[in-house]
Amino acid sequence: MDDGGAYLATMRRTAPLVQCITNFVAMNVMANVLLAAGASPAMVHDPEEAAEFAAIAQALTINIGTPDPRWVEGMLAAAEGAARAGVPWVLDPVAVGATAFRRDIGARLLALRPGVIRGNASEILALAGAAARGKGADSADPVAAAEDAARRLAQTSGAVVAVTGPVDYVTDGARAFRIANGHPLMPKVTALGCSLTGVVGAFVAGQPRLEATVAALACFGLAGEIAARAARGPASFQTAFIDALHAMTPDDLTLGARVEAA
Amino acid sequence: MDDGGAYLATMRRTAPLVQCITNFVAMNVMANVLLAAGASPAMVHDPEEAAEFAAIAQALTINIGTPDPRWVEGMLAAAEGAARAGVPWVLDPVAVGATAFRRDIGARLLALRPGVIRGNASEILALAGAAARGKGADSADPVAAAEDAARRLAQTSGAVVAVTGPVDYVTDGARAFRIANGHPLMPKVTALGCSLTGVVGAFVAGQPRLEATVAALACFGLAGEIAARAARGPASFQTAFIDALHAMTPDDLTLGARVEAA
Amino acid sequence: MDDGGAYLATMRRTAPLVQCITNFVAMNVMANVLLAAGASPAMVHDPEEAAEFAAIAQALTINIGTPDPRWVEGMLAAAEGAARAGVPWVLDPVAVGATAFRRDIGARLLALRPGVIRGNASEILALAGAAARGKGADSADPVAAAEDAARRLAQTSGAVVAVTGPVDYVTDGARAFRIANGHPLMPKVTALGCSLTGVVGAFVAGQPRLEATVAALACFGLAGEIAARAARGPASFQTAFIDALHAMTPDDLTLGARVEAA
Repeated sequence: MDDGGAYLATMRRTAPLVQCITNFVAMNVMANVLLAAGASPAMVHDPEEAAEFAAIAQALTINIGTPDPRWVEGMLAAAEGAARAGVPWVLDPVAVGATAFRRDIGARLLALRPGVIRGNASEILALAGAAARGKGADSADPVAAAEDAARRLAQTSGAVVAVTGPVDYVTDGARAFRIANGHPLMPKVTALGCSLTGVVGAFVAGQPRLEATVAALACFGLAGEIAARAARGPASFQTAFIDALHAMTPDDLTLGARVEAA
Repeated sequence: MDDGGAYLATMRRTAPLVQCITNFVAMNVMANVLLAAGASPAMVHDPEEAAEFAAIAQALTINIGTPDPRWVEGMLAAAEGAARAGVPWVLDPVAVGATAFRRDIGARLLALRPGVIRGNASEILALAGAAARGKGADSADPVAAAEDAARRLAQTSGAVVAVTGPVDYVTDGARAFRIANGHPLMPKVTALGCSLTGVVGAFVAGQPRLEATVAALACFGLAGEIAARAARGPASFQTAFIDALHAMTPDDLTLGARVEAA
Repeated sequence: MDDGGAYLATMRRTAPLVQCITNFVAMNVMANVLLAAGASPAMVHDPEEAAEFAAIAQALTINIGTPDPRWVEGMLAAAEGAARAGVPWVLDPVAVGATAFRRDIGARLLALRPGVIRGNASEILALAGAAARGKGADSADPVAAAEDAARRLAQTSGAVVAVTGPVDYVTDGARAFRIANGHPLMPKVTALGCSLTGVVGAFVAGQPRLEATVAALACFGLAGEIAARAARGPASFQTAFIDALHAMTPDDLTLGARVEAA
């Protein structure tokens, strides 16, 4: 794959406006992560304005973490607005297997052809229609168990599919990569996965989806590795993580990315 | 009372899935506090899925901090779903005396028999039908002024009632304990009380309600004492608090808990 | 202008109850900023209780960052309730030029005569009916470009208008001040502008609007300058900022404020 730092440099230069429809837990940290990375986040979700805004954004991300029917209406309108305007959008199917309501939302959003899908192994398995064992928003399945499902889901949906965990797996249905960056404290901080989805959105704005997604995951994981050196627990880790993302240079990313073809 | 550390050890081992219906202010910090303590939080509130999810959770917590009619519907459905499934649930009646809307919500939730009620003195007084002087979400009454009301509320409702403040008071209507752990910076950080309610939920999952509630309060207050040593103000206190909760061992809790029978 | 520290001292002594109707991104940090400054925040937004609560608050702030029709109903009811009770209220017209929905909300709230309006240059230009170039919630116009619009808006609306940016501009339509406190990391932390609106609300509770707004802006910017000395990036900056606001004395503010008549 190409040089990861180049994707970060392009993202920083364009500072894309990323519309985020996300859950209440992630709102603040996701916005701070996007600002630190170099993008311009905007939380706009209501049906009154979600589609109109999607047409002026450079990317859209949709996260179903705390859904209700009106928010779902906004999600569908935004995804349709993005499609009409040629704006790429990223789906984050939080706990999609947990309830009937979420399974239905996942299916309806999937039909609107996201450019990228990012989830943990249990979520990707559930979205692909396979048996999954998620525990709320946490995965109870290893990444390896979801690789086949991810490849099939990419082929049937046309999306780049990213399964994140200790080692991430990203595929467009033909090619695939594994990204080994990251740190065990990351799942101890809530909404970091949601925030990663936002960073993926920022990277894919105007860049090739597969490569930009891989670069976003390496960038995010590398910030986690740097943060761990200064952390005394999950909260000081979160602080150091956002600081590290802000300080990271394209060269840091090129040197620190641990990506290989799968 | 039994060894506080044993309740922490059991909670960590089972890592209970705690469904949280909470307010918008508390969403993120409550999830991070639960993760740091060792539980698995899930924010699921809408009537479309709240009751279904309550049946797969190990505990449910309901906080009325930023209510609207649809959220109230979800709260009632979740409390009923928890009752049907034998899942314990904890009520946090934020500012229950402040408006007619909140008084009505408090009464309706109380009728669904929470296993534990946790509030400040003004909230417990208001929920028990006594005169209270809260200022928004802050108490304007001392804990001691709410002890009689707490005992009566425990007897009439069947709940364990926890009045939190500089020294906490916990009663099941017959026995009672005082917990002296904590630090004056804690009320300067928003939503720490809400987060404590989540930790109480995690501790009472599968454990005796009175003792587990006391252990949760001691654990939370002790983390505050440890955090204060490193804090330069309320924000660095919050960071150190979550780190301390994550680092606390059962032995730390047994040694540091300051509990006595009341 | 009078001594800035005197306004801080009065605010601290009265610890005003500030009702905040704000967006989901700002909820937590705004409450923590208000607590650190010395006020008592209360997030109460629903039409069921917003007007009732406004009558017992000492100030009200309304931020349109993540609007939907029901929240707008609550905003209008609260603003009317505040007016009836003689409670001052502050408008924060986030991204008001971005969509038709927001332009309509802005116009309806403006008609209810806010005591203070605080926004970035693009927002003040849009609210005043001039051409603006905002990018989501970020300004794309310099403060200087909005000074004429601010003065006209103050004259037509009766509000004190504060345009915030690298150097803030505050006017009541006749007199005007510039405040040079602040730090470039501030716009890299989400919702700090929203939080500033809350602090303005706390300062104007029972104090002259123009002078109290100027003092609030100086206080906020000065905390940013102090925080920057300890920061390693935007997240450690936010922590240090809240700690600095909590530690600031009236004398610190009087000495550090960089205010001049415009």
